[in-house]
Amino acid sequence: MANPHVTLDLTWIGDLSFRADAPAGRALITDGNSHAGLSPMELLAAATASCMAIDVVHILTRSRAGLTGLRVGLTGDRADTDPRRFRRLRLIFDVDGVVAQSQLDRALQLSKDKYCSVWNSLREDIELELVTHITSGTMP
Amino acid sequence: MANPHVTLDLTWIGDLSFRADAPAGRALITDGNSHAGLSPMELLAAATASCMAIDVVHILTRSRAGLTGLRVGLTGDRADTDPRRFRRLRLIFDVDGVVAQSQLDRALQLSKDKYCSVWNSLREDIELELVTHITSGTMP
Repeated sequence: MANPHVTLDLTWIGDLSFRADAPAGRALITDGNSHAGLSPMELLAAATASCMAIDVVHILTRSRAGLTGLRVGLTGDRADTDPRRFRRLRLIFDVDGVVAQSQLDRALQLSKDKYCSVWNSLREDIELELVTHITSGTMP
Repeated sequence: MANPHVTLDLTWIGDLSFRADAPAGRALITDGNSHAGLSPMELLAAATASCMAIDVVHILTRSRAGLTGLRVGLTGDRADTDPRRFRRLRLIFDVDGVVAQSQLDRALQLSKDKYCSVWNSLREDIELELVTHITSGTMP
C-alpha cells in the first residue's frame, strides 16, 4: 500500500507565487496571479482531471482494451461570491484506441464512485458532468 | 472580477503521467506514480496550502504587518480504504516578520471561512488543523 500520508512544503517566492516541494525533489510553482504557474483553483482542476484520467488508464490497460491516447478537457464553474468555490465540473474525455463505450463508461463510474481520491475529497454537492468521445483506430 | 470559469487540458504522455495545460502556456506534469511530477493528491495538497497562503499574504501585506517570509508545511491523512480520500489536513504556517499573532490568526480564520476557494471546495467533514510559528525580525 502507498503511504497513507501526503506531505508537502510550500515557500513564498514573491508576489502571490509559491514553490511547492514534494518528496524526492518533485516541485512546482503556483501563482495566485496566474502568471508564473497554475493558480490554486487550476491545481485543484488538474488534480481532479488527472485523478480520474489515471483511473481510466489503469482500468482500461488492465483489461484487453487497446487504449492509445487520452485527453481530458475540464471546465469548472465557480460561485460568483466569496469563497468562489467550484459548483460544477465538466470533464470531456477524448479517447483514442479500440475501446468500447461500455468499458469507458464503467471505468469512469468506478473512478467516480470507488477509486478517485481527489473527486471523493471534494464537496458532495459539486455537480459532475462527464462527456466521452472515442476515436477508434484500426487494429494492426 | 476574475473569470468565474477555470479551464484546463490534460494529455496522457505515458505510464500514469499527464501534462496539464492552463491558458497562456502555463503547464505542469502530474504523475500517478510520483516519479515525473506531483501526484493528484499532492496537487490537491499544493492547491489547498497555496490557496490559504495566498490569502495570508494578501491580508497581511494589505495591513501594516511586516511580512518578510512564509513557509507552509502540510500533512494530509488519507482514508485506509478506497477511495482513500483526505480525512484530515494539518498545515503549519511559519511566518517571518513583524506580525502579531492576532493578525495571523485573523488572516487564517478569514481564509478558512470566507476567501479560500480551494478549502471551501473540499468535503465539509475534512478536519483542518492550523498551527502557527512567528519569527519576528527587528524593525529597520
